[in-house]
Amino acid sequence: MTDQTRTAFADVSRIEEASPGEFTAVVDPGWTIGGKPNGGYLLAMLGRAAERVVPHEHILAASAHYLRSPDPGLVTLSTEVLRTGRSVSQVRARMTADGRPCVEATFTVGTLDPEARPYWSDGLPDPVVSAQSDCVPMTGDAAGAPVPAIMERVDLRIQPDDLEFARGTLTGTGVLRGWLELPDGEDFDPFSLLFAVDSFPPATLDIAPSGWVPTLELTAYVRALPAPGPVRVLHKAQLIEDGRVDEACFIWDSSGRLVAQATQLAGIRLGSSG
Amino acid sequence: MTDQTRTAFADVSRIEEASPGEFTAVVDPGWTIGGKPNGGYLLAMLGRAAERVVPHEHILAASAHYLRSPDPGLVTLSTEVLRTGRSVSQVRARMTADGRPCVEATFTVGTLDPEARPYWSDGLPDPVVSAQSDCVPMTGDAAGAPVPAIMERVDLRIQPDDLEFARGTLTGTGVLRGWLELPDGEDFDPFSLLFAVDSFPPATLDIAPSGWVPTLELTAYVRALPAPGPVRVLHKAQLIEDGRVDEACFIWDSSGRLVAQATQLAGIRLGSSG
Repeated sequence: MTDQTRTAFADVSRIEEASPGEFTAVVDPGWTIGGKPNGGYLLAMLGRAAERVVPHEHILAASAHYLRSPDPGLVTLSTEVLRTGRSVSQVRARMTADGRPCVEATFTVGTLDPEARPYWSDGLPDPVVSAQSDCVPMTGDAAGAPVPAIMERVDLRIQPDDLEFARGTLTGTGVLRGWLELPDGEDFDPFSLLFAVDSFPPATLDIAPSGWVPTLELTAYVRALPAPGPVRVLHKAQLIEDGRVDEACFIWDSSGRLVAQATQLAGIRLGSSG
Repeated sequence: MTDQTRTAFADVSRIEEASPGEFTAVVDPGWTIGGKPNGGYLLAMLGRAAERVVPHEHILAASAHYLRSPDPGLVTLSTEVLRTGRSVSQVRARMTADGRPCVEATFTVGTLDPEARPYWSDGLPDPVVSAQSDCVPMTGDAAGAPVPAIMERVDLRIQPDDLEFARGTLTGTGVLRGWLELPDGEDFDPFSLLFAVDSFPPATLDIAPSGWVPTLELTAYVRALPAPGPVRVLHKAQLIEDGRVDEACFIWDSSGRLVAQATQLAGIRLGSSG
């Protein structure tokens, strides 16, 4: 079922207009984890639909609630323009599969000024990530477990000292740093940044090895147009409680500039101790 | 127009069912800043509507995009149940005034276990806030400017060293810490926590004094049922760029436990330098 001709992110996230404000897309089986499509990948598809129905071109803010996971294959994306403004527009978008809603998302769409520069950024964490060549690709058995299909598509590398869990040691830091590169070195844009913020494995792997950590809610802000090249990623857990974890994610482009940030709330199974 | 009989948060955020899934509410003129209602206050109303249409009772995650500010007075809240699940349900809710959409929000509603305790919380900032009695109430001219109506309702106090901006010194830290107490010492619940995460002044006041900092998107996670009493607040800016700022907010209850957290993207006017 994998369509080997579809490898570029622009291709696997492509949407087709079916009627005004309504689109179709095909969820690629290669962009899944345990058969379930990556949530950021689905959000990128919805972002494309949102952008098509308003005069603005860049996703500034996206928030999604995940209802159920669609299987790879055909999905429908329906949009509703909430407001078209001078500087920003807002759009509601829903992904449906087999007539059942799967993802509900809302977008604020505007214009990212390519000439803008950070005015103040002292509140951000430092992008302290080792060189891409010093990070460990999540292919083969680097992660100590069968590799999800998606890791065969993207070049996702993790900083060696954040991989103790793969060697059986739980350091309890709740941090994963590394690099992400799209297939064939495709440059990032605001749509693929929506995928990037959800691309890393759970930041809880070195605290509580767990199976599936399903996202309940994901919010992403795109802050700048990314420079060409791979992006640096900091993905960190903040609090695990009551079967849920929140994770913050920061994305820097190849020039070291923050281009996207996100927060998500996910379910986590902790056994009897949680 | 201020209804002096409505002071409790439970009263000013009350909703009335008009038809199945549709509610009305009255935005109170006392919960405004420069005549515009506080965004977290509006989100709490929408949260009440979401909770009424599903079997679950606690808001776990809420994300809202702000389209236009309603005037104080009558608003309509319409809901759509997206999915009713065993552990969580999801609801879309929209606030409309004069037939025009004002706030679009989506909620994940579930159950907060009163017996749950944090399993891991090393990713959180420390709740380093001075005692409530040592913080400065935002009434009178403490903020160095006319006090918004809402500050006459809630007891919002800011740590003295975060108030240098009110004395004309911009320290550039982008942090506001302090305490929030509802009128008449009303205890917090998951609904009023949705207000709490948006209750503080912009964390940018000591970086770039600005007029209105309108919220574009606000996402809140409620992590635990709060203990009785006031809450501690850490509100911090992270990045100002291209006329927008993101702020993170953390809320601890009187026992020192994190009960809610939020992120928002807002517009900010910086003059010619931004």
